[in-house]
Amino acid sequence: MPNASAISNSPLIAATVRETQQLVRAQKQAGKRVGLVPTMGALHAGHLSLVKRSQSECDFTVVSIFVNPKQFSPAEDFAKYPRNLEADVAQLAVLGVPLVFAPEASEMYPPGFGTSVELNGLAEPWEGALRPGHFRGVATVVMKLFQIAPADRAYFGRKDYQQALAVRRMVADLNLPIEIVVCPTVRDADGLALSSRNVYLTAEQRQHALVLPRSLQFAREMFDAGERNAAKICEAMRRMITNEPDVQMDYATVADAETLAELNHIETSAVALVAAHVGQTRLIDNELFGPSERN
Amino acid sequence: MPNASAISNSPLIAATVRETQQLVRAQKQAGKRVGLVPTMGALHAGHLSLVKRSQSECDFTVVSIFVNPKQFSPAEDFAKYPRNLEADVAQLAVLGVPLVFAPEASEMYPPGFGTSVELNGLAEPWEGALRPGHFRGVATVVMKLFQIAPADRAYFGRKDYQQALAVRRMVADLNLPIEIVVCPTVRDADGLALSSRNVYLTAEQRQHALVLPRSLQFAREMFDAGERNAAKICEAMRRMITNEPDVQMDYATVADAETLAELNHIETSAVALVAAHVGQTRLIDNELFGPSERN
Repeated sequence: MPNASAISNSPLIAATVRETQQLVRAQKQAGKRVGLVPTMGALHAGHLSLVKRSQSECDFTVVSIFVNPKQFSPAEDFAKYPRNLEADVAQLAVLGVPLVFAPEASEMYPPGFGTSVELNGLAEPWEGALRPGHFRGVATVVMKLFQIAPADRAYFGRKDYQQALAVRRMVADLNLPIEIVVCPTVRDADGLALSSRNVYLTAEQRQHALVLPRSLQFAREMFDAGERNAAKICEAMRRMITNEPDVQMDYATVADAETLAELNHIETSAVALVAAHVGQTRLIDNELFGPSERN
Repeated sequence: MPNASAISNSPLIAATVRETQQLVRAQKQAGKRVGLVPTMGALHAGHLSLVKRSQSECDFTVVSIFVNPKQFSPAEDFAKYPRNLEADVAQLAVLGVPLVFAPEASEMYPPGFGTSVELNGLAEPWEGALRPGHFRGVATVVMKLFQIAPADRAYFGRKDYQQALAVRRMVADLNLPIEIVVCPTVRDADGLALSSRNVYLTAEQRQHALVLPRSLQFAREMFDAGERNAAKICEAMRRMITNEPDVQMDYATVADAETLAELNHIETSAVALVAAHVGQTRLIDNELFGPSERN
């Protein structure tokens, strides 16, 4: 007898904007609370935690699976980004997700497409500086997804801290009628934050990659011990990361948790942000200090 | 006894995003079809024709009145743009409009605001080339208004031809659930297209400004007589406009009615677009040829 949790109905997989809009609007018109989990597929337990959170708060959960070309720069890993729709859908079926929106790029960006959403301020430092056009691509596709699947709430992971802040900024600035819920980072037993890109790592690279969560853990211990000199915390993180073999640090910083401006001194809340290449694989991670921890 | 049409109820004037969203959503939830007429105030018969069209097609019409600073460049007439909320509201009361959204700039663009909507392609030539940032400002505010007053249809005047096309492009690209209705240009008896900026003209300047509709009328007569050489039509319009005293031509062109690319030969549809300064006042006008005339 198969495991009971595997006998779920498969979700409906909608490939078109029109079908998805119709299905989601019908739910809203029936008074259902709709949750949206935007993903690029290659689902892991982090994504599934967002789905479960949505299911606990909403009546109807839509998961979008779309590897968005506009948020990759030409030098990045768009072509080799992991894709496995069948395995993704199987995981969502187990959770009982009723609707997956999985469009082709031509459905999202038909010929003549010429509109983008730009974010100033929050989207400029850190990931924005190192990945030109990345947040424009993110904001544009998220705006579209919010129109295609007009949910009451949308769920994002805190691992992509700057992305979550940028999406919240866009929602506030453009008066979008949706609530952004940011969920805790899910980690493997060794401490590495779950990421679809972790599959790129060799076993040896993975050991080196652990310097990222270790540096953040060290920063957290300094903060918990009373250290409020942000530069000292940064310096400790940077030393750990730059001393690790096969790891090229992009940045390690302690920034204001709301504005992302680099801090000299931690007053109330702060976020430690790290990004590095481990071999060819780019990884990011972060740790929140202070009152925002329970965001 | 006062004129019956003047005994209408005054519209509710909402100054906040929140109140407007609540009022419009309540209408939608009650199954009403909502129409939105976005304006910068200084209402004239052109605006009122949009309101009447909305009233003939929708159950509930919202008019927004907001002189949007983001669509003016520093050299333009933001500070002196005509404003008369009381007179505007009186005109809308006569028509029985129930809701006017009239926010302050600080309500639309609070501190920290940092999001904009960018349009490539359609927004680049003509007005886009001469008014850098103009269509970014238009697209951003229109996007916000569509979220603040989530209407089924929004009404724009064909006088601002490129703007209407750009808004349609944004709506299509971002999958916004709203229909854009473009209404015919309303003209004064002398032929000048109605514009809130016409009040800037002296009597003498107004006579000179008539070269714009006259040049378009001449272009129409050439087209109706069978002329399909777009360059010849352009040349005739340009000669008329440049020969007019006190008129500085910005452009006069015959362009594809959908892409706005300048045409050498008119195949099916085309639009003649003109823009000029008359004294310090910048005016635009246009004329559609071919099947798109009935748009």
